[in-house]
Amino acid sequence: MRRRVDRTPAAPSKATPIAVDGRRRVVIEAVMPEIDAGRFPAKRALGETVTVEADVFADGHDSLAAVLKYKLLPTTGVPAPQAREGAPKATEGPNWIETPMTPLVNDRWRGEFPVTDLGRYVFTVEGWVDHYETWSRQLAKRVQAGQDVTIELEAGARMVEEAAARADGSAADAARLKTLSKSLRAGGATKPDGELTALMRRYADRTFATTYAREVEVVVEPVKARFSTWYELFPRSVGTFKDVERLLPDIARMGFDVLYLPPIHPIGKSHRKGANNKPAAPGEPGSPWAIGSQEGGHKAVHPDLGTLEDFRHLVQAAAGQGLDVALDIAFQCSPDHPYTREHPEWFRHRPDGSIQYAENPPKKYEDIYPFDFETEHWKELWQELLSIVLFWAEQGVRIFRVDNPHTKPFAFWEWLIGELKRTHPDSILLAEAFTRPKVMYRLAKAGFSQSYTYFAWRNTAYELYQYFTELAQPPVREFFRPNLWPNTPDILTEYLQSGGRPAFQARLILAATLGASYGIYGPAFELMEGRAREQGSEEYLDSEKYQVRAWKWDDPNSLRELITIVNRIRRENPALQTDRGLRFHPTENDQLLAYSKSTPDNANVVLTVVNVDPHHVQRGMVNLPLEELGIERDRPFQAHELISGARYLWNGPRNFVEINPHSLPGQVFRFRRRVRSEHDFEYFL
Amino acid sequence: MRRRVDRTPAAPSKATPIAVDGRRRVVIEAVMPEIDAGRFPAKRALGETVTVEADVFADGHDSLAAVLKYKLLPTTGVPAPQAREGAPKATEGPNWIETPMTPLVNDRWRGEFPVTDLGRYVFTVEGWVDHYETWSRQLAKRVQAGQDVTIELEAGARMVEEAAARADGSAADAARLKTLSKSLRAGGATKPDGELTALMRRYADRTFATTYAREVEVVVEPVKARFSTWYELFPRSVGTFKDVERLLPDIARMGFDVLYLPPIHPIGKSHRKGANNKPAAPGEPGSPWAIGSQEGGHKAVHPDLGTLEDFRHLVQAAAGQGLDVALDIAFQCSPDHPYTREHPEWFRHRPDGSIQYAENPPKKYEDIYPFDFETEHWKELWQELLSIVLFWAEQGVRIFRVDNPHTKPFAFWEWLIGELKRTHPDSILLAEAFTRPKVMYRLAKAGFSQSYTYFAWRNTAYELYQYFTELAQPPVREFFRPNLWPNTPDILTEYLQSGGRPAFQARLILAATLGASYGIYGPAFELMEGRAREQGSEEYLDSEKYQVRAWKWDDPNSLRELITIVNRIRRENPALQTDRGLRFHPTENDQLLAYSKSTPDNANVVLTVVNVDPHHVQRGMVNLPLEELGIERDRPFQAHELISGARYLWNGPRNFVEINPHSLPGQVFRFRRRVRSEHDFEYFL
Repeated sequence: MRRRVDRTPAAPSKATPIAVDGRRRVVIEAVMPEIDAGRFPAKRALGETVTVEADVFADGHDSLAAVLKYKLLPTTGVPAPQAREGAPKATEGPNWIETPMTPLVNDRWRGEFPVTDLGRYVFTVEGWVDHYETWSRQLAKRVQAGQDVTIELEAGARMVEEAAARADGSAADAARLKTLSKSLRAGGATKPDGELTALMRRYADRTFATTYAREVEVVVEPVKARFSTWYELFPRSVGTFKDVERLLPDIARMGFDVLYLPPIHPIGKSHRKGANNKPAAPGEPGSPWAIGSQEGGHKAVHPDLGTLEDFRHLVQAAAGQGLDVALDIAFQCSPDHPYTREHPEWFRHRPDGSIQYAENPPKKYEDIYPFDFETEHWKELWQELLSIVLFWAEQGVRIFRVDNPHTKPFAFWEWLIGELKRTHPDSILLAEAFTRPKVMYRLAKAGFSQSYTYFAWRNTAYELYQYFTELAQPPVREFFRPNLWPNTPDILTEYLQSGGRPAFQARLILAATLGASYGIYGPAFELMEGRAREQGSEEYLDSEKYQVRAWKWDDPNSLRELITIVNRIRRENPALQTDRGLRFHPTENDQLLAYSKSTPDNANVVLTVVNVDPHHVQRGMVNLPLEELGIERDRPFQAHELISGARYLWNGPRNFVEINPHSLPGQVFRFRRRVRSEHDFEYFL
Repeated sequence: MRRRVDRTPAAPSKATPIAVDGRRRVVIEAVMPEIDAGRFPAKRALGETVTVEADVFADGHDSLAAVLKYKLLPTTGVPAPQAREGAPKATEGPNWIETPMTPLVNDRWRGEFPVTDLGRYVFTVEGWVDHYETWSRQLAKRVQAGQDVTIELEAGARMVEEAAARADGSAADAARLKTLSKSLRAGGATKPDGELTALMRRYADRTFATTYAREVEVVVEPVKARFSTWYELFPRSVGTFKDVERLLPDIARMGFDVLYLPPIHPIGKSHRKGANNKPAAPGEPGSPWAIGSQEGGHKAVHPDLGTLEDFRHLVQAAAGQGLDVALDIAFQCSPDHPYTREHPEWFRHRPDGSIQYAENPPKKYEDIYPFDFETEHWKELWQELLSIVLFWAEQGVRIFRVDNPHTKPFAFWEWLIGELKRTHPDSILLAEAFTRPKVMYRLAKAGFSQSYTYFAWRNTAYELYQYFTELAQPPVREFFRPNLWPNTPDILTEYLQSGGRPAFQARLILAATLGASYGIYGPAFELMEGRAREQGSEEYLDSEKYQVRAWKWDDPNSLRELITIVNRIRRENPALQTDRGLRFHPTENDQLLAYSKSTPDNANVVLTVVNVDPHHVQRGMVNLPLEELGIERDRPFQAHELISGARYLWNGPRNFVEINPHSLPGQVFRFRRRVRSEHDFEYFL
């Protein structure tokens, strides 16, 4: 390491000029939601509310006032990342909307605003010393103490007169303030009334108001960014795009709203992988992630699946069933990809002149060429990769599942997602990143709408409690939206391999109720495919990644019915459609995990209890914080089990649960409070 | 509230130009210590170490390197606060010193640097993808797998050649690198050696290095900012400055190193307060905080105490005893202060033209005029108040206790302290702020070296545990240095009023061992003055604030001996000289508080156990985390009780303690590990 020791000695400089207006006495700190001091936007979905909190205080004992100011940015584009490293002061303009903030405790203030448009909002906080309110509060005490308040009334009258002068937009208000001022001076009112208070608030003296140092961004995405139900399917196992179209009603009927397809592009032939990851024999189809052949690259469709026109037709047909088609964005090439010939400068070269294949020494993946993001021609590369996403956006695709985003620079993703959202603010991107936690979080900060998680490997009740408690903490919850997958084509966990039907059922119920977004890789999931390639491996035997699989879609043992019920429960219960409002509850049994989700008003409260032991019956007492859940302590309430339809009458915070995993390893209760109708019948709401 | 609804609709703008260099792949986040995103400096005392941690990571799986860069700022002045609201990029210059950072776990890196000068340092973090290190790590795996590495050696040789080209400062290094490159190419070394590694580190390719977005400041203050022992004394109760001088040896012998004097200025006559806060009778001396009379204001000395020359002599004499004289900075005026005539514009005026006195309606404090910090002439006011502090600094005073700082703007303090430290970086300011927590923290951030705390009102073991745990958390511990006072002239707690001698002893031991800085208001403290003016009041009966008290300095019942011992223990045990390294330990008894402080190397470990019940004997088991304290689990260790001198042989983590408050309510143990000498005698270190 270089070590330079020439240090300039400390020497007093000239006096610092006072640049600040020292009369701005209010300070504003600890604003939430704000991520990394405003470096990244917080995330919301359309129609949600942004609740903003801040520490607002001043020296002394004066009363304060504070407002939340917000506006939708006229452009949804974002400046390039490096330019944003400092505090963003992106926008200046007169179009702030203001809403009052109210004090909580300990100098904390709160306000909120709704997000009604896709794109980017900014908000900030403004606070000031409210001399009128201080005067008013003190006047009441003086009057109560029986003091002569003549001079104080005069002081108040002057403040009201000054407000009248500020009311230049409304002659009526100005006149009314002058009248009220006279009335104060005349001693007519020693207690300010509501009208005066309202007028004085409207025309407050904000000369020395302080505005928070930063304008904080909030990116607003479609509702499916928050609440989505994914079904992953290898189209080639079904046949062509047209064959997939015929499956759409089935998939929609199961309650899914996103149909995610692995890469649909031409597949390379060089070093092609065959069944069970062996070198391909002639005629084997290869891995869809080995993208590119003489038939085209990332903007082409594999001829076996159909034409681009067929694909567009599939997207339209899916939309008719409420399904978004999500495409896989895998920025890598097979050795046969046109880019390798047309743009060899986008790849790294070995000393012998060949293109560097992917590797994790000593392992070599010679069928895959990664892009070299350190190439001198990185700008052209970035633009081309963006053009791929825009190309598919033009075909009607709005949801993208991004393969291995953690092997491309964060700055690249921030730029690409910003560019995509500038023209397509309704786009949603899911990061496939099963990597180190900070890398996953940074990708989410950089703009990914959702992310895969460690859910698949969290199988004990304690692990699930710990992990989902971490995800629910601020600031993580403000930028990281988990999407829970019990299985993927790459991940067949030991729990699923060994747990049989109860394991699949438990993981389904957990994913669907712990996560507002979840997905399954089917039909492997509903048909409970649990065979691994070898002991200790998470790879499927006869993985669809390397071969076509003919699934028995109408297998009577399929979990299809349970999936349909669980997804219906999700649609009918708003509490399950957000990751806010999650609470864990003690069960007195390590194998029983209990948690509830509730809407902020507790109108919808859903309790899930899962036996994570796929082999044995487990019993426990679920301990509920009734008050927090909006349930009266001394009245019975109905626990409606939504999968079976059974209804139980519960009373008090401790309730017995027994779960036999061989019947069903999880139960999902909706709580219904008892209410009386005007006819004195009893109903449960 | 104003509400403007004219909103510009979202419209796509032109494509964002790529401003960033996309090849900078490393990101640097979560730097510590950093306060409010660099808005405020962290604090250190001279000779300490700044340990810096940061998340440093990149996409992919390449090896990284990171360095910590730091420098002393050539000026200790700070820009005015508002200018610093954004990210400070105060300094540009070639004089960075670099030191390597090492990875911990989970993408966290750590480095450290010493602070050897008073003033302000800045540091930042730089990280880069280390292709050579990646290559080297992968080469080892390839060799181990028996692969042909000819091409890899060629790739490595080229990297070494490039490093040789970068070694333009050292012909020897360049030549050596060229030789090593040839050796690699010749296949002579398939395992890079230490020399090559070191040279490649020295001439690393940092073309695409990322530097952290901010330069983080650290303000370095004198050691007494961290470790100080205060004695507060009303000089007029002793007599004159000359009389105080005669007391200095006694005060120094008790182990104090700061002698804090309440205001020493002329006292106003208008509305003067007399004994027990009644209107003064003729001849009563008044409150020293009612500053200013015809005899002068904040830059004058009360004639009864002596002359300015006498004061300077006192400061010099104190220094000879290792004592700093701390002055009280109370920015407020009596109605007779010269400022009220010369600068009426610095005060607020009532509608009748009179100057507004201090009040907390319905209470009036007509002997005090606060300054109006919202005056149009605030700049002149700021400069004048600064000139007061500088005046006393010129008399040799370096420590200031600031009265009621929370009633003056934060921006004012930040400016004033910055200005003072620009010319007097050895100054220390203690904030007297018993106010809301966020206000206290903000004052500390604004620059106060130390702060009073809620210690006086934290009397149960649980309260003390909670409060000191909060103060030890980052980022609080980085900017807030507590100074613990069991009593002050304003605060005689109920605990002291009712607890008698054991209460005073317990509070002394707590203050002196929980806080690296503490102080007492004496002789009231050591003479255990516990009489309140009235039931339920924390005001002293016959408070020295309003009258002269003749204390019995040589009272044999005084706590002077205990104070002397406790302060000696503080001087002899470095663990007690810092607030880092504090750990609480369970005692299985709510009335027994146990905690240890230890140096980072555990060379000095001090355990304190206090019975907070001043009335009854309490017994408990102290549970010690032996490993964390550097004590071998299976060997006995000596617990040397430092107040009594008793030595106990302890074994294992659970140890019995019994404390009779009527003997002494606290015990302070130094742990000494057993070691064998070469003669097989046993010693305890």
